Amino acid sequence: MGGFAEFDAYIRARAHEYVDELKALIRQPTVSAQGIGVEDTATLVLERARRAGIGAEALRADGGPPTIVGETGRGARTLLVYNHYDVQPPDPLDEWETPPFEPTERGGLLFGRGVSDNKGNLMARLQALEAYRATIGELPLRIRVLYEGEEESGSEHLAAFVAKYGDRLRADGCIWEAGYKDAAGRPTISCGLKGIAYVELRVRGAAKDAHSSLATIVPNPAWRLVWALATLKNERDEITIDGFMDEVRDPSAAELAELERVPFDEAGMLRIHGISHFVRDVHGAELKRKHFFEPTCTICGIVSGYTGTGSKTVLPAMASAKIDFRLVPDLTPEKVARLLRAHLDRRGFRDVEVVPSHGERPSRWPTDSPIARAAVAACRAAYGVDPVIYPLMAGSGPMAQVCDALGIPVTGFGSGNAASANHAPNENIAIADYVDHIRAFGRFLSAFAGRPLE
Amino acid sequence: MGGFAEFDAYIRARAHEYVDELKALIRQPTVSAQGIGVEDTATLVLERARRAGIGAEALRADGGPPTIVGETGRGARTLLVYNHYDVQPPDPLDEWETPPFEPTERGGLLFGRGVSDNKGNLMARLQALEAYRATIGELPLRIRVLYEGEEESGSEHLAAFVAKYGDRLRADGCIWEAGYKDAAGRPTISCGLKGIAYVELRVRGAAKDAHSSLATIVPNPAWRLVWALATLKNERDEITIDGFMDEVRDPSAAELAELERVPFDEAGMLRIHGISHFVRDVHGAELKRKHFFEPTCTICGIVSGYTGTGSKTVLPAMASAKIDFRLVPDLTPEKVARLLRAHLDRRGFRDVEVVPSHGERPSRWPTDSPIARAAVAACRAAYGVDPVIYPLMAGSGPMAQVCDALGIPVTGFGSGNAASANHAPNENIAIADYVDHIRAFGRFLSAFAGRPLE
Repeated sequence: MGGFAEFDAYIRARAHEYVDELKALIRQPTVSAQGIGVEDTATLVLERARRAGIGAEALRADGGPPTIVGETGRGARTLLVYNHYDVQPPDPLDEWETPPFEPTERGGLLFGRGVSDNKGNLMARLQALEAYRATIGELPLRIRVLYEGEEESGSEHLAAFVAKYGDRLRADGCIWEAGYKDAAGRPTISCGLKGIAYVELRVRGAAKDAHSSLATIVPNPAWRLVWALATLKNERDEITIDGFMDEVRDPSAAELAELERVPFDEAGMLRIHGISHFVRDVHGAELKRKHFFEPTCTICGIVSGYTGTGSKTVLPAMASAKIDFRLVPDLTPEKVARLLRAHLDRRGFRDVEVVPSHGERPSRWPTDSPIARAAVAACRAAYGVDPVIYPLMAGSGPMAQVCDALGIPVTGFGSGNAASANHAPNENIAIADYVDHIRAFGRFLSAFAGRPLE
Repeated sequence: MGGFAEFDAYIRARAHEYVDELKALIRQPTVSAQGIGVEDTATLVLERARRAGIGAEALRADGGPPTIVGETGRGARTLLVYNHYDVQPPDPLDEWETPPFEPTERGGLLFGRGVSDNKGNLMARLQALEAYRATIGELPLRIRVLYEGEEESGSEHLAAFVAKYGDRLRADGCIWEAGYKDAAGRPTISCGLKGIAYVELRVRGAAKDAHSSLATIVPNPAWRLVWALATLKNERDEITIDGFMDEVRDPSAAELAELERVPFDEAGMLRIHGISHFVRDVHGAELKRKHFFEPTCTICGIVSGYTGTGSKTVLPAMASAKIDFRLVPDLTPEKVARLLRAHLDRRGFRDVEVVPSHGERPSRWPTDSPIARAAVAACRAAYGVDPVIYPLMAGSGPMAQVCDALGIPVTGFGSGNAASANHAPNENIAIADYVDHIRAFGRFLSAFAGRPLE
C-alpha cells in the first residue's frame, strides 16, 4: 500500500464528491432545541458510519435521542472520536444570505447551518477513515465513535449514556468535535473547553398585558428584569454576583507563560466582527487571559412586551432573559445556580424566577499528552506549519461528561475558522479547510498509533 | 316630539341592531402602526357619518391619513366630538380567547380590538344623534366631528391638520374620545390627558450575531442597553433621568383637595390586574396622587438575541427597547428627548441611539367648565348616580394638538370600564355600558345646549 502522498491524491480526486456528501447531510435540518429532524439525521449518520466500516449502533439512555456508537480497526491504542449531529436553531432567518438548510458555495466557502458546527468534521473524519484504508491500509489503532444528537440543547442524557455504555467508549485519547484556524489563518489545536450554565430568568407582573398608562401603579416585569440583570455584571464587564469570582481558579504561572507564546490576531478579530474595540478595550496578554481563563455572563436573548413594527403603549405582563455563563475551573453549573439565586434573593428579587436550562462543567487537559502531541504532529505534517496550541476553546460542550468521567485525555482540531459564524447566520467553512481536515485526520491516526507520517 | 323616556325606549328597541353595526366596524381591522386597513375604515366611517346627517368630508394634511370632519345641527353653542377610528396592534395574538377582529359576545361583554378604544364610542355617539332626532327633535346645538385615523400611532399629521382646517373645528367645548367606569362600576368623567413621549433605544454591537463564547472580548449590546435602562429609573420607581423630575409641576392644594374626594377602588384594581400590590406598595392618597399627577417611564417592549424555544448560545448584534413616558405639566416630548440624550451622554452611553417615535403634550382643563358640568349632569341623569370626576385620564392622546391649539375646554366620558383591556388582548366593553353611553350622550347634547333633561 501507499503513504500520505497517495492518501492526499486520493482525497483531492474525490473532493467534489466529499463536499456533495456533506451538503446532503446539511440539507437535513437537525435542530435539537426545537425537536426538528433528530431521528431522521440519526438514521442518515448511522448508515453513513456503517458504510465507513464502523460496526455502529444507535442506542439511547433514559429516553434520550439516538446516540451512535461503534468501533472499527485494531491496534495497541484506542482513539475515541466525539462529534454531534445536531445543529443550532437557524434564527434570525432573514440575516442568512442563502437559506440555512440549502448548502451553497460562494467564493470558496460553503454556507449552511452545521457545516462548521459540527456536521463538517463528523463527515470529514468518516471520509478520512475510508481514504486511509483505500490508500495506506488497515487502520493502525482501534477507533471508537460517539455521535451525539442533543449537544446544541445541553446533552441532557449524555451522562446517563456514558454511565450505561462507558465500556464502549473507553480509549487512550479523544479527539473532540472541532477546531478552528485563527483570524490570521493559523491552524489551532486545543485541550479543553469552558463549562457552561445556561439559565432563563423570568418575571411575571399583572395577569395580562395592560394599558401603559397604568404604569403608575401596576408593576412592570420588564423593569424588574432590567434591575435584576444590572446587578449581575457592571459596566466594566465585571461579574458582580456575590461569591462568583471567588470560585475562579487563577491560571498557573506555567499556563500564563504558555499563553504568552500563543499568537492572537487582534486586528483580524476586530475586522471579522466589525467592531472598533474589544470589551473593556483589552489588548495583548490581558485580552488572551480574559478570553481563555475568565468566565462570562452573557445575555443571549431578552424579550418583553411589544417588539413589532411601530409603537404600542403596553405594560407587559411578563419578561424573560436567556443568560449563559461560560465557566472556568472551579465554577460548576450547580454553583452558579446556587450563587445566582442567593444573590437575587439578597437584593429582594425573589420575584425573578431562575429556570436552569442546561449546564456543563469545564474540562481542562494537558497540552503535552500523547493525544495532544499526535494532533500537533498531524497538523504540522498536513499544513506545513506548527499549529497554535490553545489551552482550551472558549466554547463549551459535554467534554467533562465523557472525558473527565472516563479519564480520557482530549484534544481538538478541525475544519473551521475564526469567521465560521458558528451559532450565527451564514455559518460557513472554507472548502479547502474541509479537504485539509481529512488530510490532517488521516495523519493524526498514524501519529497517535506511533506510525511514521510519510 | 318626546323626551328622554321616548329616547331611551327607542334606543332599547334598537340595541341589538346598534351592537351589530358596531361589530361590522370592528371586523374591519385598522392598525395604523402597521398601515393596515386605514383607508377602508375611513370610507366606512365617512359613509356612516353621512347617514347620521353629518355633512362629512375626508380631508388630509401633509400626506397624512384621511381625517373625517363635518357638522350638523344648529344652536347657540358648538360641540366638537373627537374620536379616532384606528386601533392598536392586536399582539400578542395567542392570548386572545377569540380572534381580535371577530367581535364576540360572552357573558354580556363584547370582545374585539377597538370596541373600547375607540370605535365603540365613535359609533355610539352617531347612533345617539339619530335617536335624538327621531325622538326629541332637531339637535339643539351645532355638532362638529373630528375622526382621526392615526391616534394609535402618534397623530403625526394632526397638528398640521388643525393648523389647516382649524376653522372647521372651533367650538365652545369638546368631548374627547372615551371614558370608563371605575373598578367599582361608578361612571367617571375626566378633563384632561397626560402627554406622552414614545422613544426607541437602540444599541448595535458586532456586525452580526456571534458565538457567545466570544463574550469575553466582543461587546454585547444587550448588556449596554440593560445598563443604560437601569440608569433611567430605580427600584423605588423613581425616574432618575437628570433634570426630569424638576420639570414636574406639583399639583395645587385645590387639585389635591379635589382628588381627595375621588373614590378609588384599590381592591378592585388589584383583582382586575391579578396583582398582589401596587408599585412601591402605594395606597390611598399617595396612590391617587401617583396615578394622576406623576409621570411614568415604562418599558413597553425590549428585544435582543434569541427569544425562541429552548436555548441558543448567541452573542446578539443588536438590542432595542421601546419606552413610553407619560407626561404631566410641564414635561413635553421635546424636553424628554433632550434630557434623555444628555443623561445618557453624561454616563458614557453615546452608543445608545434614541429614536423618538411620537409625542403629545399634556392637556389639563377645569373640572367646572360648562362642558364638564354638562357631562356631570348627563351622567347623573343617565346613570342615576353622581359620576366620579377625575382631573384627567392617565392615558394620552392628541388633546393638546386640538383643544390647547384652538382653546376649547374638554371633557370625556364613554362606554369603557376598568377591565376593558385597552391596548391588550381581549379588549372588551359591557353591552349595557354601550347602550348607556348612547343614552348619556343624548342627554349631554341637551345639557350643553341648556335644555332640560326630561
